[in-house]
Amino acid sequence: MNILNKKIELIINSEKGKDIIRVKSGGNLFNVLIDKGIFIDSPCNGKGICGKCKVKVIKGLKKPTPLDIKQLAKEELESGFRLSCNFTINEDTEIVLLEKNKDMKVLINGTEQQYTLDTVVKKKYLVIEKPSINDQRDDYRRLSDACESDDLLIDLQYLPQISNLLRETDFNVTASLYKNRLLHLENGNCLQQNYGLAVDIGTTTIVIYLLNLNDGKVIDIDSRVNNQRSYGADVVSRINFTIENPKGLGILKDNIVSQLNDMIELLCKKNNISEDNIYDIVIVGNTIMIHLLLGLPCENITRSPYIPVVTKALELEAKEIGIKTKGMVSLLPGISAFVGSDITAGILSCGMLNSEKYSLLLDLGTNGEIALGNKNEVVTCSTAAGPAFEGTNIKHGIGAVKGAISKVDLSRDKIYETIGNEKPCGICGSGVLDAVAQFVKFGILDEAGRMAGADEVENKDYQNRIVEVDNMRQFILVQNSIHEESITFTQKDVREVQLAKAAVCAGIKILLKEKNINFNEIEKVYIGGGFGNYMDIESSVDIGMIPKELKGKIESVGNCAGGGAKTYLLSKQIRENAADIINKTTYIELSKRKDFQEYFIDSMILD
Amino acid sequence: MNILNKKIELIINSEKGKDIIRVKSGGNLFNVLIDKGIFIDSPCNGKGICGKCKVKVIKGLKKPTPLDIKQLAKEELESGFRLSCNFTINEDTEIVLLEKNKDMKVLINGTEQQYTLDTVVKKKYLVIEKPSINDQRDDYRRLSDACESDDLLIDLQYLPQISNLLRETDFNVTASLYKNRLLHLENGNCLQQNYGLAVDIGTTTIVIYLLNLNDGKVIDIDSRVNNQRSYGADVVSRINFTIENPKGLGILKDNIVSQLNDMIELLCKKNNISEDNIYDIVIVGNTIMIHLLLGLPCENITRSPYIPVVTKALELEAKEIGIKTKGMVSLLPGISAFVGSDITAGILSCGMLNSEKYSLLLDLGTNGEIALGNKNEVVTCSTAAGPAFEGTNIKHGIGAVKGAISKVDLSRDKIYETIGNEKPCGICGSGVLDAVAQFVKFGILDEAGRMAGADEVENKDYQNRIVEVDNMRQFILVQNSIHEESITFTQKDVREVQLAKAAVCAGIKILLKEKNINFNEIEKVYIGGGFGNYMDIESSVDIGMIPKELKGKIESVGNCAGGGAKTYLLSKQIRENAADIINKTTYIELSKRKDFQEYFIDSMILD
Repeated sequence: MNILNKKIELIINSEKGKDIIRVKSGGNLFNVLIDKGIFIDSPCNGKGICGKCKVKVIKGLKKPTPLDIKQLAKEELESGFRLSCNFTINEDTEIVLLEKNKDMKVLINGTEQQYTLDTVVKKKYLVIEKPSINDQRDDYRRLSDACESDDLLIDLQYLPQISNLLRETDFNVTASLYKNRLLHLENGNCLQQNYGLAVDIGTTTIVIYLLNLNDGKVIDIDSRVNNQRSYGADVVSRINFTIENPKGLGILKDNIVSQLNDMIELLCKKNNISEDNIYDIVIVGNTIMIHLLLGLPCENITRSPYIPVVTKALELEAKEIGIKTKGMVSLLPGISAFVGSDITAGILSCGMLNSEKYSLLLDLGTNGEIALGNKNEVVTCSTAAGPAFEGTNIKHGIGAVKGAISKVDLSRDKIYETIGNEKPCGICGSGVLDAVAQFVKFGILDEAGRMAGADEVENKDYQNRIVEVDNMRQFILVQNSIHEESITFTQKDVREVQLAKAAVCAGIKILLKEKNINFNEIEKVYIGGGFGNYMDIESSVDIGMIPKELKGKIESVGNCAGGGAKTYLLSKQIRENAADIINKTTYIELSKRKDFQEYFIDSMILD
Repeated sequence: MNILNKKIELIINSEKGKDIIRVKSGGNLFNVLIDKGIFIDSPCNGKGICGKCKVKVIKGLKKPTPLDIKQLAKEELESGFRLSCNFTINEDTEIVLLEKNKDMKVLINGTEQQYTLDTVVKKKYLVIEKPSINDQRDDYRRLSDACESDDLLIDLQYLPQISNLLRETDFNVTASLYKNRLLHLENGNCLQQNYGLAVDIGTTTIVIYLLNLNDGKVIDIDSRVNNQRSYGADVVSRINFTIENPKGLGILKDNIVSQLNDMIELLCKKNNISEDNIYDIVIVGNTIMIHLLLGLPCENITRSPYIPVVTKALELEAKEIGIKTKGMVSLLPGISAFVGSDITAGILSCGMLNSEKYSLLLDLGTNGEIALGNKNEVVTCSTAAGPAFEGTNIKHGIGAVKGAISKVDLSRDKIYETIGNEKPCGICGSGVLDAVAQFVKFGILDEAGRMAGADEVENKDYQNRIVEVDNMRQFILVQNSIHEESITFTQKDVREVQLAKAAVCAGIKILLKEKNINFNEIEKVYIGGGFGNYMDIESSVDIGMIPKELKGKIESVGNCAGGGAKTYLLSKQIRENAADIINKTTYIELSKRKDFQEYFIDSMILD
């Protein structure tokens, strides 16, 4: 027997009790837990960066790896804590999951929100009375009666098949219903095959969660770079493509639809699931991504007064969009042109709605969407933060890929860290933030953001690193990168960061002013989105992006948009909550507020 | 000025008061009345056959024509009554419409049923507040608010257009709604352009009524032979075509859909109406015609226990079926495989539901559908009458076309009449019925239906007319037809009629037995369908098709299926009534009833 395929025992102790599962030898502990639907906090999604996926190993403990040593405190290591994402199971193992303390309440998977598993999709196994000369009900009626539905809806495209389906199966079928709509008739008892997808379409990344609708567990996750990137990295360039090219809108729509179809096909193949058993696909995304998915024109979004075609929750047949499943697509409601359904999902899942006290949710990217709310009301805005946090208008900026500089610390010998400890190839958003914070701390930048000349600093190393090229000062972070050129951070890069952080900070202040509350009244600051996973909270406060008064309240909530999509898929109650959020949410258009300009200018300083 | 184009005055006195309209000189009075939406009883639809369209002319009276003299009594002629279908208006004219007496209550147009004009389609002219930085509602929401709808439904195929439509029209639009569904957005105030169709798809004929949904008036009517006839004259041969030919169902579906599209296009062109303004199309037909229209397999209908795919009322987007209008298609509910939505429409419009007393409705064709009911309940059956009444399995049988022998009277010199007084080319259903009745009356047939030999009759003329060809006796009706051969009526033809009439008579008796009522309790016998227009009521009783006890109660109601479709188009209340009929209607399957066989055999005799 190949030792790698040997089945071994994993015992999991949690708040809920003890679970014993059989696993293959050689498996990664984090993946095993996720596969089994046991959710574990991991804003970095198992990349070894966030350190949050630690578990206490009480049987089968191994020596700490360098990553364990880096991410965990000495006492933790001694108590048997290890990073689950860095732990290979190759013998019988017993672990204890962390008690969910307050700081861990909101998980990347968003499933800690209270809800009852109650999907819109219902499967029913039906043994139907056969027709006879004494019971001549037509097939439609017979099926409606069996489903106990007065108003069963059968699509005209599906209707021609039902008579044969009923007879071929000897009137023994499983019917899948979405509300009163018949999605699928199968031969015999197929109650087990009941799946749904939660999809987060980001401008940069698409994440699809495959869920079992019978138990609400995540079966698999796939994430990819959004193929639309070849038509522009940011939403503005994609919208321009649709305006400048008469067929542009169709091209972008086809692009995302075919990528979704490809991803769904692969997820199904990998998990041995039929696409016909995917009954509901919940999709979230910013308003532009949703418009492009639906083939809706975006030009009115980009010019004042910024009007989308639609933001409301939609329920569509997958085939209407071009998605090749038999089921439905449910789109979460968005809030405005620049506060999309991804933010609605984040609000749903971050925990803001659980408390009487106000919390903030920040989703930072090209736009910084900010929501301030409690269980009774939410107020949102969107700041044009620019793509600095996504690394795109920074000279050596790149996305959060392997080799991206994600941390900068001038107090160390090696002043940077890269994702995956690879050779540095550029700097991503969190590194950008760190760099500016560190430059201020070590006197390389003054309050106004002016970079010192080499002759103005005392530290020898900095003197060597500060150079002037084409009349622009820049700081050399890495002398020899794999691209055979230095990675630098320029004066212009600093200005970009100042603009971005000032926009976010001013947005926060406007929302607080709008609700007339002060920093003390804020319970939590949730940082959502991919950037939040890597962002150094201290740096974000140091450069004044997040007001200092909020420092102790900041918490990363990972992909809260995906988490919200999952709960929306699993719970009718959450759908009602979402509709309710929209009703109690106000959007503040910053471009018309003079006080925003004032806050913005005030927030430019680096202190 | 051309005298034919001179506008003259027509004054119409009716129960509702006096109407004065301007008409062109040279117009046909019947057509003018129909065009103006003034409905007038005419089972024969203006063909000069039924005599029911008579009006009293009090100004502009003309000498009676031969047709007036034939159809109207001497006293009527002297009082100024004339057939409107035979009256040309070429001077100022004043008429009095008949008071609607009981016998005239049910009109071909079916609109005398009580209902309030209240269509499902609503048009709204909207002057919508324009977006601004202080009112950033998305276009969908803005439109929903303007329509005062919480759940406005906009098809994903239409949604991409609405933003441009709103801006091109400066937010000044007319919205057409079907329930909560947006069908159409138009520039400015287009409330006047609001049309619907009532469609009766018969096995033989398709009739389309174009109606103005604002006033409920019929604008135009088109009727054509159903093009599917090239795939078989009767439903059974068409079903066989769908079974034997793998693409047969698709071919027949495409055939009817494209014929409907052609007819709709022509009606629109002729009346200068845009197809985009046809918002609702109500369709009735027998269950097979509806299955073929929807592309539904029919094989289970033809074999016991005779199960259709669907009989319920359906509301579909026209484009789902393939019909090229922006609007909806509403299908009336049917009752069973052999009692279709045309019968539901007939029940709705014939008047049966107005009374506590029971009435019968007969629709005679290949199948004789029979309904017995009152305002509380309806019981129906379908008898396999065979195509004798449609002339198709009769040696010289033809449909009710020009030149068809529609009446036979052996007491006259010229023993037959043809439709349109054209040269005889065959015999249609009403002629067939007359022939058998006359043969019995004049001793050419005995009670058992045996045709006498030439040597067995005394009348010289009959001796010449009765011949024997290929061992089959036949009676020569016309010696030289335009087809250069004689038109005869054979012993086999007699047998066909006996089978058909026995089936109908037995069906009537079963329904009465089922409800345990006797002939005295029957208030009316409504004869629907095209055949009813021509059928000689006396003959139908003489041959025992309709029991003699019902003789004085028989009334032709013309195209009551089309009439029902029209009211269904115009009134939400009538739609509810239709749903209600279905709930209170029972279908009796005759094939399982032994007593039917007994009644059937009893009813074979001709007496």
